[in-house]
Amino acid sequence: MAQEGADMTAETDCMIDKNVGSGEPSRNVKEMRAVMLSGFGGLNKLRVTKKLMPEPQRGEVKIRVKTCGLNFLDLMVRQGTIDSPPKPPLVPGFECCGIVESVGKTTERFEIGDRVMAFVNYNAWAEVVCTPEEFVYKLPDEMTFAEAAAFALNFVAAYMMLFEVANLREGMSVLVFSAGGAVGQAVAQLCSTVPNVTVFGVASILKHVAIRDSVTHLFDRNTDYIQEVKKISPEGVDIVLDCLCGENTGKGLSLLKPLGMYVVYGASNMVTGETKSFFSFAKSWWQVEKVNPIKLYEENKVMAGFSLPNLLFKQGGSGMVKSVMDRLLRLYNQKKIKPVVDSLWALEEVKEAMQRIHDRGNIGKLILDMEKSPTPLMASDSTETSEAGEEEEEPEGDNDSKERMPFIH
Amino acid sequence: MAQEGADMTAETDCMIDKNVGSGEPSRNVKEMRAVMLSGFGGLNKLRVTKKLMPEPQRGEVKIRVKTCGLNFLDLMVRQGTIDSPPKPPLVPGFECCGIVESVGKTTERFEIGDRVMAFVNYNAWAEVVCTPEEFVYKLPDEMTFAEAAAFALNFVAAYMMLFEVANLREGMSVLVFSAGGAVGQAVAQLCSTVPNVTVFGVASILKHVAIRDSVTHLFDRNTDYIQEVKKISPEGVDIVLDCLCGENTGKGLSLLKPLGMYVVYGASNMVTGETKSFFSFAKSWWQVEKVNPIKLYEENKVMAGFSLPNLLFKQGGSGMVKSVMDRLLRLYNQKKIKPVVDSLWALEEVKEAMQRIHDRGNIGKLILDMEKSPTPLMASDSTETSEAGEEEEEPEGDNDSKERMPFIH
Repeated sequence: MAQEGADMTAETDCMIDKNVGSGEPSRNVKEMRAVMLSGFGGLNKLRVTKKLMPEPQRGEVKIRVKTCGLNFLDLMVRQGTIDSPPKPPLVPGFECCGIVESVGKTTERFEIGDRVMAFVNYNAWAEVVCTPEEFVYKLPDEMTFAEAAAFALNFVAAYMMLFEVANLREGMSVLVFSAGGAVGQAVAQLCSTVPNVTVFGVASILKHVAIRDSVTHLFDRNTDYIQEVKKISPEGVDIVLDCLCGENTGKGLSLLKPLGMYVVYGASNMVTGETKSFFSFAKSWWQVEKVNPIKLYEENKVMAGFSLPNLLFKQGGSGMVKSVMDRLLRLYNQKKIKPVVDSLWALEEVKEAMQRIHDRGNIGKLILDMEKSPTPLMASDSTETSEAGEEEEEPEGDNDSKERMPFIH
Repeated sequence: MAQEGADMTAETDCMIDKNVGSGEPSRNVKEMRAVMLSGFGGLNKLRVTKKLMPEPQRGEVKIRVKTCGLNFLDLMVRQGTIDSPPKPPLVPGFECCGIVESVGKTTERFEIGDRVMAFVNYNAWAEVVCTPEEFVYKLPDEMTFAEAAAFALNFVAAYMMLFEVANLREGMSVLVFSAGGAVGQAVAQLCSTVPNVTVFGVASILKHVAIRDSVTHLFDRNTDYIQEVKKISPEGVDIVLDCLCGENTGKGLSLLKPLGMYVVYGASNMVTGETKSFFSFAKSWWQVEKVNPIKLYEENKVMAGFSLPNLLFKQGGSGMVKSVMDRLLRLYNQKKIKPVVDSLWALEEVKEAMQRIHDRGNIGKLILDMEKSPTPLMASDSTETSEAGEEEEEPEGDNDSKERMPFIH
């Protein structure tokens, strides 16, 4: 541990040197706080550090960040269990919200002062973010920055799965394996915008009281929910949304009605411990039942995959996403959907926030809030956070909570 | 060969005994002509024979058949290369058209004299067919029985793939691997009912003149059409319709745009010779690239299978199909779609018709026409057909063709 700590310090120093130094006197250089992932691994690979503030390039928007979304995908990035990850050190995060501070040449749709939410291909967890304007969307006046951080990725993903990949229509049924998460809650709300849609949700029993009203039928993750669904709906369901992708994928496929669609939108079963276990990772990959197209043909079934980050950043899908966002903002303005915020965390609390999503403790979205100060540590907590929070301001404000639970918005 | 011929005769006699005899004096029993498959295998397993005429059970419709559709699937049935086939001897055929001759108790939607088309779970290739009324549809006055035999299975399959499984919308692109077949021609016509849809078709060069106008871009099956499509549309296509399902499936998947859908609706690559080769069958099955859901997730792709017979007869899909048929008949009445008939064949010519579909020589639909007499044999043909045609009427009428090409409607 000591060895690793020493390495980390050197590494962090090196990063600061690299970003800040070389040529210009560091005093003239604008710096910002950012979460840095020094290498793939456990929580100890995350640090809050100082980093050179980016300036917007052609077509980009520079955002003074207020809130960032924290997603299960960020945990997979930390462990290195995603497909072709960039080389660390890196600043994680795929979405942020804030105020436009400046714009690059040829940037047309935004002005200084605009309240926006944005997708970023990494680098979202920082005080300042630059991203191409095709990934930026203006906020409705009524939408808070906390709501916005719970909106973009989750609602766009839920909407596209239900209406672009699948073709959700009146009278259909949907099974969502993670009903309590941010995507699950968005799915439940979007299903309620279509008449007579039945939502089967699976969630930890601890969340049942909180989310009971959001779905039609709710099952405990630790029961044989496939059988429970079959009891209620022997003919099966029209759409299954699976963010786990593991042994249950085959079972879930068996639940589909003819012409039903199974959508894999995550592979969280690949995450088993705090660090990537290559064995469990490979096991998950191979245990996922490979699908023979001839079997799909015989059974009249559809298997789909959906990854919003890949669609946006690798596959040129920003135009498609923009039109989806327009429709979603209309639904928001009509008060038909409302993002569910689980909790807000200071940048320095990123490890605790990540642990909470790892433990699947959240109901709705986990958010990093740039203006929030860390909640004081309890005596039993380790000193790790003070290390991590080397740049943090002094705790102040609403820190009367005895436990390390963040302020819930 | 002599041995096999002797076996066949015994087998045929046995079938006639079984079906006609036992209990009643055969003189009082109503008989009908039917195509009989005596066992899985080559063309020599097919015979026209006499069979006891069925009577409609509760909820069934009895149809005096005028025309029957012949599909690639019938060839796979003959070879035994389908999933859980019934035990032969059997009468093949999944669709027929004709006039209602009587109805069973509780049958409500049909009357004697109605002109109808119907799906049948085998037993379509006979002079009289009984099938549950849920599988029967009235013909528009203008629709001939030949058109009707080219309509039901192909247009329903094409429509459901494009609009129920996939979600074809304005501006999309579709690649169909068998543009010249009956489903391919139905796909092309249905695509033309949606604004600005690009259809990429693949067909044997021999068919290009005939079908050139039905699609936007036409490729020779013997060229690297995947590359050709990429040249025209580097971003890929939205929907691929594949009735081959073999080595090209993986390549076809690579052609999909993000959120694009690959639909397997047949596995005709499993048919290599006249008889089933277990080796080639197993090879095809295993060579079909199994799909890892995580790969679909990373690439934002959708893999679907569609089998109309399974949907109708194993999965209770008749209600869904009925509403599709209603929409299709509206399109027919609006003259937006029109079935393409390749050729009409006498019942006794079933082997030649099957050979033609095996050789993929057809443009549009092959039809068995109960009222047609066999075209006379050419000197070089074998005597097999005269055996097969033991019940046939004398050739008469439009038999002036020198080659064994049937009358084209």
